[in-house]
Amino acid sequence: MSQDLQKMADAIRFLSADAIEKAKSGHPGMPLGMADVAAVLFSKIIKVNPADPRWFARDRFVLSAGHGSMLLYSLFYLLGYNDISLEDLKNFRQLNAKTAGHPEYGHLGGIDMTTGPLGQGISTAVGMALAERICTAKYDEPLCGHYTYVIAGDGCLMEGVSEEAVALAGHLGLNKLIVLWDNNNITIDGKVSVASSTDQLSRFAANGWNTLDIDGHNHEEIEAALLKARNSDKPTLISCRTQIGFGAPAKCGTPKCHGSPLGAEELAAMRKNLQWDYAPFEIPADILDAWRQAGQRSIAAYNSWQQLAAAAGPEFTAFINTMLPSGWNADLKALLENQLKEKTPLATRKASQLCLEAIVPNIPEIVGGSADLAAANYTTVAAMKPIQKNAYNGNQIFYGIREHAMGAVMNGLALHGGIIPFGGTFLVFSDYMRPAMRLAALMGIRVIYVLTHDSIGVGEDGPTHQPIEHLASFRAMPNILTFRPCDIVETAEAWEIALTREHTPSLLALSRQNLPLLRVSAAENLTARGAYVISDVSNGKPRQATLLATGSEVSLAVEAQKQLREKGIEVAVVSMPCTELFDEQSPAYQEQVLGAAPRIAVEAASKFGWEKYVGLNGDIIGMDGFGASAPAAELYKYFGITVEEIVDSVKNCIK
Amino acid sequence: MSQDLQKMADAIRFLSADAIEKAKSGHPGMPLGMADVAAVLFSKIIKVNPADPRWFARDRFVLSAGHGSMLLYSLFYLLGYNDISLEDLKNFRQLNAKTAGHPEYGHLGGIDMTTGPLGQGISTAVGMALAERICTAKYDEPLCGHYTYVIAGDGCLMEGVSEEAVALAGHLGLNKLIVLWDNNNITIDGKVSVASSTDQLSRFAANGWNTLDIDGHNHEEIEAALLKARNSDKPTLISCRTQIGFGAPAKCGTPKCHGSPLGAEELAAMRKNLQWDYAPFEIPADILDAWRQAGQRSIAAYNSWQQLAAAAGPEFTAFINTMLPSGWNADLKALLENQLKEKTPLATRKASQLCLEAIVPNIPEIVGGSADLAAANYTTVAAMKPIQKNAYNGNQIFYGIREHAMGAVMNGLALHGGIIPFGGTFLVFSDYMRPAMRLAALMGIRVIYVLTHDSIGVGEDGPTHQPIEHLASFRAMPNILTFRPCDIVETAEAWEIALTREHTPSLLALSRQNLPLLRVSAAENLTARGAYVISDVSNGKPRQATLLATGSEVSLAVEAQKQLREKGIEVAVVSMPCTELFDEQSPAYQEQVLGAAPRIAVEAASKFGWEKYVGLNGDIIGMDGFGASAPAAELYKYFGITVEEIVDSVKNCIK
Repeated sequence: MSQDLQKMADAIRFLSADAIEKAKSGHPGMPLGMADVAAVLFSKIIKVNPADPRWFARDRFVLSAGHGSMLLYSLFYLLGYNDISLEDLKNFRQLNAKTAGHPEYGHLGGIDMTTGPLGQGISTAVGMALAERICTAKYDEPLCGHYTYVIAGDGCLMEGVSEEAVALAGHLGLNKLIVLWDNNNITIDGKVSVASSTDQLSRFAANGWNTLDIDGHNHEEIEAALLKARNSDKPTLISCRTQIGFGAPAKCGTPKCHGSPLGAEELAAMRKNLQWDYAPFEIPADILDAWRQAGQRSIAAYNSWQQLAAAAGPEFTAFINTMLPSGWNADLKALLENQLKEKTPLATRKASQLCLEAIVPNIPEIVGGSADLAAANYTTVAAMKPIQKNAYNGNQIFYGIREHAMGAVMNGLALHGGIIPFGGTFLVFSDYMRPAMRLAALMGIRVIYVLTHDSIGVGEDGPTHQPIEHLASFRAMPNILTFRPCDIVETAEAWEIALTREHTPSLLALSRQNLPLLRVSAAENLTARGAYVISDVSNGKPRQATLLATGSEVSLAVEAQKQLREKGIEVAVVSMPCTELFDEQSPAYQEQVLGAAPRIAVEAASKFGWEKYVGLNGDIIGMDGFGASAPAAELYKYFGITVEEIVDSVKNCIK
Repeated sequence: MSQDLQKMADAIRFLSADAIEKAKSGHPGMPLGMADVAAVLFSKIIKVNPADPRWFARDRFVLSAGHGSMLLYSLFYLLGYNDISLEDLKNFRQLNAKTAGHPEYGHLGGIDMTTGPLGQGISTAVGMALAERICTAKYDEPLCGHYTYVIAGDGCLMEGVSEEAVALAGHLGLNKLIVLWDNNNITIDGKVSVASSTDQLSRFAANGWNTLDIDGHNHEEIEAALLKARNSDKPTLISCRTQIGFGAPAKCGTPKCHGSPLGAEELAAMRKNLQWDYAPFEIPADILDAWRQAGQRSIAAYNSWQQLAAAAGPEFTAFINTMLPSGWNADLKALLENQLKEKTPLATRKASQLCLEAIVPNIPEIVGGSADLAAANYTTVAAMKPIQKNAYNGNQIFYGIREHAMGAVMNGLALHGGIIPFGGTFLVFSDYMRPAMRLAALMGIRVIYVLTHDSIGVGEDGPTHQPIEHLASFRAMPNILTFRPCDIVETAEAWEIALTREHTPSLLALSRQNLPLLRVSAAENLTARGAYVISDVSNGKPRQATLLATGSEVSLAVEAQKQLREKGIEVAVVSMPCTELFDEQSPAYQEQVLGAAPRIAVEAASKFGWEKYVGLNGDIIGMDGFGASAPAAELYKYFGITVEEIVDSVKNCIK
């Protein structure tokens, strides 16, 4: 082993351990254990440019074991990334530091994604590797080609989402994906054997992966394995047998060094053990120099890429910035004009498909799919072509019955650039991919969820398939837009917003059942206001009550309004397709929409949260418990979500 | 193949297809495809007693592919279960029918669990099989021994939760678990090969399973495989190669017969094809008779079990009914008396561990565990002994980094009887097991979730580890109790309620950080009221405002009350450890607690939902976005969840 490389690895070890010690918080075990693998990968193999961390054709690197964040920060500093300083390392885990406890996307240019929740990194990396194949199929290897590297621990491999993603990666033959498994045989509870006997190499092989097994502290073996993996025709898992906390004499090889600072005594012993006679945060000039030189390894490649990219012209620039082409929504607007004339009742899931028919041909960056419900989610349109192994020049992914991987892979597609992903499943099964959706919200990326069968309107499939708490649970989640459109106009408006909000994931909750067209004009995107009066009181009459409704229940409210009018009661109907956007409006607008009269909310879902708009003196017509199995119309009656109930409620409220 | 058995299988086929046809809704493909396997299993192998479907020592059967519910209903009718009639079959998928769209636990005695969300059945079955081993280790084979059979489809195998559970089953050597895989090569989107290339047999083998591969329409092969599997020293996957929709001449072997009725024409053709000259719902006497005789196969075993059970005495009866021993909470009460004297500040996660120290030795049915966070969740106590392969006489499970499987396995343990399961992870990672938690709520079973690190109080680990929307998302979910106790008294009360509510899952959201003891008495379980005045206004003074707080924020409210009192402002502090239980109280009690004065809610979580209690004129001090990485105390300041903010808010509200 080269003396230099050993010292370079030890530099990672000490920067990491010292920063964790200073923060009095952090996870030294992994950076110490994987420092050798990281040193080889980052000094000899990976294609990055520290001066341009977001370079489109860079190799992607995902620290799936995100708790080892100091490994990444140490590497960035050593390689000479210019957005990180020694001060930042000293500031590890402090308020507003770039060097957060776990790598946070956007904090540093070199962080390709937020990690921490186990299993997400490796699964999102599958999306990045797939994105590379898709982009390369469009613009060729020199412009888009790169590898995707992952460091994953036992936790990432045990999480079920990894199986879903690993199976998909094997199926799609993503041979430029290389996972380095920190096979240290230790988890928080003790040895891996306490909870697992899985033969991981066989498991990955069963999923169509190439597998390699090496000593994770032997630099020659590491380099040879990486070179071999790069030439594989399958994705590769490299089992790197390592010792957790390598170098820390008393704590290495035990869970004790996983999640707490080593302590002054152990750190001093580690200095002695590794013959590292330098102060905390001190890196000898020759070692730093070797690292900085390593950081420049890909400059020639970078420069020639710049020339190619310039030659490829503005279309390519727009593509890598995932910019919507001008006029992308012209067909969508034409569709709405036509629909406003025809007034055909449509399920909003079907409306969404009509929108996609008008959108997909005009946005080459869109890549859609479904978790084995394409025909139910209506996520397939004529302009879509399946993406399959060795045929990546398509725009439709068959995710299989793998909602969680779909969520994570979509994150990877969005993070990669050049792609706007959408994916479908039933709203109730959003639960399966919720951890990935939360990460999309936290990272602030453009991922679009098509979630159909959005209420008891599902009917006969019963309570396991009927979402109740889901709308509320997403409205409670920061930075994700929850759309529940009432007709095709609102559906199109929701798509328009979802596609243009670059830093917010959006979900469209869509009906299984047909709904009437309620909007009379599509001139203004009223969904962008979050809520608006869709049907007002009769001219000049005072508003006696306000009905707030979403999705399939807006038409019930409009019908109730009619019946009430016949009884001499004037109410306004407010459609509220996106409460989050409504909350962003001016107080004056909000007051104008909600009105001073009693308010009644109608939504075939959990009532939880509606007091925010109706207050303590209003009423909420919704669900108090789980749904049931029966034809949809009967369920609406059974659960009292009907025009009659609305009428009665208004009468009660205005008494 | 026996002619009789063929006809018995066809009886399943036609009852299923006819019921689906009548309902105009349902999934015929699976019952038709797996009728042969089911006929062999239920007529020759399985140990059940139709007259006592809940027999403790029965073999468990889980239809993981729950959409094939008619397979199950047909079997129950044919075997002579006395809670199902032909009328019930004709009533398939209608309002209030026992024969719901998917099998619903509690609707029929023979339904061992609710299925429908894919992957849950096979994973929950792992819990049942483990429960059998645990119970058998206590009371021996003749009293508790049984097999657990599963029918699972491709969807169940693709879902990540299945990998987690399969890995755990292999690790624990659950050799009485037998999974029959309906290997029909078809999913909704088309051939399995559209989305998957996984070699499932190799994958299961990598996880320590025995695997067999048979023709799923060959009765001899089916029987031989089942007998072989029963003698395996590992859990067994039997790949049953089948044709989806077997018997339906035009639609078999295609997704067309998966999720829609066959239609009159195809059904007629199927009658011709299988030479079934009987009217819908007509079963010839000889075939019904053969089935009814099969239903009596285990009567001798049942009768001898009854004698053994009687001989085992009331302790065994209490055990199989999972009844708490009298006096189980005496040590818990003693603990609280002591704590009320000592007044040691404690993190509620640590308080929970002290409670468990007092509870676990007194309730032999408790089986706890954690998803690799035992030392962080404080879920391990002295009276616990690890459960390992071939050593099932313990009460602690190491679930590994597999939250979702933990949730599903706990469902299986609870459904089985004889076990009260609890399991720990971080609150934020409840997202990973949410689909299993929803099923627990829907089934109404006693599962207890110990969810620590319950707010930004997590500190340096940052936003990926800090729950924000989670409390609201569970409050929106029906039939699950969300506890967030403020000190050890409330923690003990929450445990008491969680253990005694037999038909409701409960979660305890517990702090990482130390909290002061606030309660002055433990004489009454005040947590059972959901909310109560924990610190009132000074004697006789009018209440000027009400502070509503939960968990770690109650002590902030109490401190604010003190500071306000010094300024001459009198407020009451309401601790609200369980909003769901508060909602169950009388309006009079609710009004008394909430008061007429302005209300301010304080909770270090999403504000969403608090308007329910504070109305439109109150205030909510909470989180508007995601958390951050920094020491916990700094985060509370940074996000404005402080005594000062509360004081200011009160002053504003009472202006």
